[in-house]
Amino acid sequence: YILCSLQESAASCTMEPLRRAALETMMPVWILLNTVSGMKAVDDAMEELATEKEAEESHRQDSVNLLTFILLLTLTILTIWLFKHRRVRFLHETGLAMIYGLLVGVILRYGIPATSYHNQTPPSCSLKEGPTTTLLLNVSGKFFEYTLKGEINLKEIHNVEQNDMLRKVTFDPEVFFNILLPPIIFHAGYSLKKRHFFRNLGSIITYAFLGTAISCFVIGNLMYGVVKLMQVVGQLTDKFYYTDCLFFGAIISATDPVTVLAIFNELHADGDLYALLFGESVMNDAVAIVLSSSIVAYQPSGANTHMFDASAFFKSVGVFLGIFSGSFVMGAATGVVTFTKLHCFPLLETALFFLMSWSTFLLAEACGFTGVVAVLFCGITQAHYTYNNLSEESTKRTKQLFEVLHFLAENFIFSYMGLALFTFQNHIFSPIFIIGAFLSIFIGRAFNIYPLSFLLNLGRRHKIKGNFQHMMMFAGLRGAMAFALAIRDTATYARQMMFTTTLLIVFFTVWVFGGGTTPMLSWLHIRVGVDPDQDLQPSGDRQSKTKQESAWLFRLWYTFDHNYLKPILTHSGPPLTSTLPSYCGPLASCLTSPQAYENHEQLRDPDSDLIRNDGDLTFMFGDTAITANGATSEEALERELDSREQELLSRGTRLVFPIEDHI
Amino acid sequence: YILCSLQESAASCTMEPLRRAALETMMPVWILLNTVSGMKAVDDAMEELATEKEAEESHRQDSVNLLTFILLLTLTILTIWLFKHRRVRFLHETGLAMIYGLLVGVILRYGIPATSYHNQTPPSCSLKEGPTTTLLLNVSGKFFEYTLKGEINLKEIHNVEQNDMLRKVTFDPEVFFNILLPPIIFHAGYSLKKRHFFRNLGSIITYAFLGTAISCFVIGNLMYGVVKLMQVVGQLTDKFYYTDCLFFGAIISATDPVTVLAIFNELHADGDLYALLFGESVMNDAVAIVLSSSIVAYQPSGANTHMFDASAFFKSVGVFLGIFSGSFVMGAATGVVTFTKLHCFPLLETALFFLMSWSTFLLAEACGFTGVVAVLFCGITQAHYTYNNLSEESTKRTKQLFEVLHFLAENFIFSYMGLALFTFQNHIFSPIFIIGAFLSIFIGRAFNIYPLSFLLNLGRRHKIKGNFQHMMMFAGLRGAMAFALAIRDTATYARQMMFTTTLLIVFFTVWVFGGGTTPMLSWLHIRVGVDPDQDLQPSGDRQSKTKQESAWLFRLWYTFDHNYLKPILTHSGPPLTSTLPSYCGPLASCLTSPQAYENHEQLRDPDSDLIRNDGDLTFMFGDTAITANGATSEEALERELDSREQELLSRGTRLVFPIEDHI
Repeated sequence: YILCSLQESAASCTMEPLRRAALETMMPVWILLNTVSGMKAVDDAMEELATEKEAEESHRQDSVNLLTFILLLTLTILTIWLFKHRRVRFLHETGLAMIYGLLVGVILRYGIPATSYHNQTPPSCSLKEGPTTTLLLNVSGKFFEYTLKGEINLKEIHNVEQNDMLRKVTFDPEVFFNILLPPIIFHAGYSLKKRHFFRNLGSIITYAFLGTAISCFVIGNLMYGVVKLMQVVGQLTDKFYYTDCLFFGAIISATDPVTVLAIFNELHADGDLYALLFGESVMNDAVAIVLSSSIVAYQPSGANTHMFDASAFFKSVGVFLGIFSGSFVMGAATGVVTFTKLHCFPLLETALFFLMSWSTFLLAEACGFTGVVAVLFCGITQAHYTYNNLSEESTKRTKQLFEVLHFLAENFIFSYMGLALFTFQNHIFSPIFIIGAFLSIFIGRAFNIYPLSFLLNLGRRHKIKGNFQHMMMFAGLRGAMAFALAIRDTATYARQMMFTTTLLIVFFTVWVFGGGTTPMLSWLHIRVGVDPDQDLQPSGDRQSKTKQESAWLFRLWYTFDHNYLKPILTHSGPPLTSTLPSYCGPLASCLTSPQAYENHEQLRDPDSDLIRNDGDLTFMFGDTAITANGATSEEALERELDSREQELLSRGTRLVFPIEDHI
Repeated sequence: YILCSLQESAASCTMEPLRRAALETMMPVWILLNTVSGMKAVDDAMEELATEKEAEESHRQDSVNLLTFILLLTLTILTIWLFKHRRVRFLHETGLAMIYGLLVGVILRYGIPATSYHNQTPPSCSLKEGPTTTLLLNVSGKFFEYTLKGEINLKEIHNVEQNDMLRKVTFDPEVFFNILLPPIIFHAGYSLKKRHFFRNLGSIITYAFLGTAISCFVIGNLMYGVVKLMQVVGQLTDKFYYTDCLFFGAIISATDPVTVLAIFNELHADGDLYALLFGESVMNDAVAIVLSSSIVAYQPSGANTHMFDASAFFKSVGVFLGIFSGSFVMGAATGVVTFTKLHCFPLLETALFFLMSWSTFLLAEACGFTGVVAVLFCGITQAHYTYNNLSEESTKRTKQLFEVLHFLAENFIFSYMGLALFTFQNHIFSPIFIIGAFLSIFIGRAFNIYPLSFLLNLGRRHKIKGNFQHMMMFAGLRGAMAFALAIRDTATYARQMMFTTTLLIVFFTVWVFGGGTTPMLSWLHIRVGVDPDQDLQPSGDRQSKTKQESAWLFRLWYTFDHNYLKPILTHSGPPLTSTLPSYCGPLASCLTSPQAYENHEQLRDPDSDLIRNDGDLTFMFGDTAITANGATSEEALERELDSREQELLSRGTRLVFPIEDHI
């Protein structure tokens, strides 16, 4: 089945961890879907024929449903084109996709009469043994095989069969995690290699890790207050634990300012601000996933199951660190391994690249880590190392391939969100909770941005100005990741309320904040139309930058990366023979690509690391530039590098040119 | 589940049509997979934890399995690269993929001990009612939901649970039809727009339709003889009807000379021969699908169920014509509709293109036609019309996107074939049947090629020479389509025997004939290294070409296409105002793209239809060229056109350049 009807099991099955673990097995492209539908008693040939017709009918219905989604996307694309053509900026494609999704949802919900062809409660049979994967049904000598779908509440049995159409357009939530998110996240990681990203790496990591954790706990605690208030008022009809509140804090802390970034890109807004926002949103997705699963892993021992338990807390922290570092290592390792030498055959290179990225996801899942996080770091690593090894043709191809996948997946998720508001059948709209959540996310975001910016500014040479901080505050949109995390588990009352609230938060932030980006930019006096090179010129703030940031973490890594990793993993960078001590000579010459020598001679300056990316020439500061304190020498170097761009563009091609003789 | 374990249902369910109809609902990307596995009795928390662990274990196992497939593909890619690098031609990538598949199959079969974690027969319960989609299981008050998977033979119940590992690496056969074949077939259709294809259209259609039908009936009748012989010898242990033999004839008549064509391409063998082989193989895939489903639809009425029944026969013929023409119209219609005006935004164009191609598949399935056939004609139509409307960037992107999808899908199918020889658990190796089948396919191919070539040569100006006929005979490889059709239904004894035989035929033809292509080419004195333009020069045969072929069918269509369809659907071709009668003036000017006028003036010669494709400039003969009888005038035109290529290459860009003011 295409649009499978697993909502009922998602909504009501209480065997959640079990089901989830089992469902996680579904990888991109493979989905769990229920088998045969529309079957009725098969007594004789006539009835069999009738059943066949019914099955065929159901099959056609499914095709029509999927067609609806595709036409929805087509409509979105056409409207986007119209908007881009007319330079309409108040509504982004994702916002548009949601609107169309909402419209179709309304039509499905209210426009089409319930066409359920099996209204009666399904037959039930009793067994003493527990449920097994496979169950055989004996109908007068004929055996039929059944597979377990999940546990079901008694009260849900009747709902299950209520509206066939609505059930059919409901996807299994794991689809989002295993099929739609990976291309989005990978693409984000793969496009992180921007000039400004590494300059702001420290700040980005601070916002993403510390900031998301702060936001999660602030929101969690505030929401616990809201829940207590609801209990007092009598609005809460079921259990809602403190861990649930924290879980909500985790899932809603993943920002997704795709709308804002699109406008930044179009208007050429400040590069540092772009890097900060984009980097933060990419990283905090990973943090939010792992954080939420660590909170789920928090299971206090003993009878008093919802009080603080230190050992369980530390276990959760351990889970967080374990999963995160595991996924990181896995992703980075696969990214590094994928250094291809298949020049001349771009098709093979592209296919290999795609397969290796996918295998990262699978490998992480196979090892019990988080595939999505691994894919993110794989993307980042591949952009940093593998990208340099690909032939020029393949760099384009891979970029375009993942761009299309990303585009389709993202718009699909957003249009599905619109649809879900009407077709999801277990919404719990609680006004107090919703208002509380809206307030909490703003407070949480403020506790993330302002204090951390203050702290970071102590160490940054290039300060994060006040208007930048306000913009970052404003750009705290929620999107695909929050939705995917929320829909993943809607088994309990608390989770259903969270899901509904998350949906509303995404709608509101994407439409209102997304739409208000352009006015906000001018209101905050953030300069737009910045020439990507111009903002590298020294400004007043720049000179006051201390050596702290660049001095230890970044510089250490940069030197190591530039002198050892790049020469080993790519064809660029200085040859190892010149960076390693002389006693490592034989090893060095064995590991160095013959091209490196050639490049080395051409470049002459071993410290200027030049990487072509995304059509424009990107460069990172060489050691000399970073350690140099005076702005004048930096400026001089930049000017020089700028003037060399044209020359190097052609040389860049040579950097990745294949030398086939040595294999 | 990734590598789902549906083989048992595929192997034994006798409710085939029902199941198939239900399974056909699965669209590309969506697969029917069984839900939860590794679940055992859930009595208390301890056991639940154990079950959770087991489910997690099973999930990891699945990841590992899919990872195996991906590593298999990776290995294939790396070896292909090595082969291409060393210019090894005796083994094609598909042959290689099969070898790796075989190796992994052997390891899975014999190397890994059976790790079945539920050996016992699943519990069964009895009901008086027939099977319903959903079944509820009551285990001491808890309700579990089960979904129907299919009917199962009693003797299979024990086999079902026998080897978990082998079951897990077995895909649902519909995966091939709904996920892997569409990109392969679409890509084939999309790359059909070669210079030589339309010149040989009549011959290709003859070979594909008439030839495949002949081959099907010849093979079917011969195999019926073989089956009768087996009955006499006592080698046949179950039923094997005449319709089964015809079905075998249909599925094995789909040729797939991908190996041969790859070598042709590399060695620049004769363009006409390439077009004949490629065109035939693409078209006969479609014919074979529809033919096999018409044979299945042949259900004689009355008690004597396996004698000839005229009404059932005509019904089958009707089904064939209905499905084929329906799918054709649907595919062509969607292909024509997809004419985009989204220049400047290649990403949107590519996404739209992809979605429209997919929606063709869904639309055809929704209407009860064959999605794969519709996709083929959609590809051909899009190559012919939509391609001209795409921006230059998008033409590249779409080609590359489908190239990657095609490459991955094809190699996956072939490596799966290798795997299936060892992991499929219902093989029936019957030496007589296999030998008979090998002989039959050669005889069938001979009855296709030689008589039809003789007939065609009566009408062709450019004769199909003897060595070309031998080469076509030799290039009758079987591949992905035969396999997909054979694995689709392995429920009965007859079908299982066919599946095994098909697998062996594919192995043999791909390795032996594929590997022997280069020697065969030189043995048959077929010239290689032909300059694509050179073979357009008039030869002796050329002059004797009668006007027949070009006179009616082709010329009629060409004129209509050139004068009316192209101007309406693309931005190229003469403006309608100049081709339509004057009283249609307003309509004509309304339908004509403003660019057409511009192009018209630029081109000056309204009859020379120039389409850029695949990097080289492809052109079709204008009306004047086709009606001109003397080779000299044709040659003159060609020379002129050739000399204009460079000039037009740049002009071609202008042909598809957007004019945005008019929207």
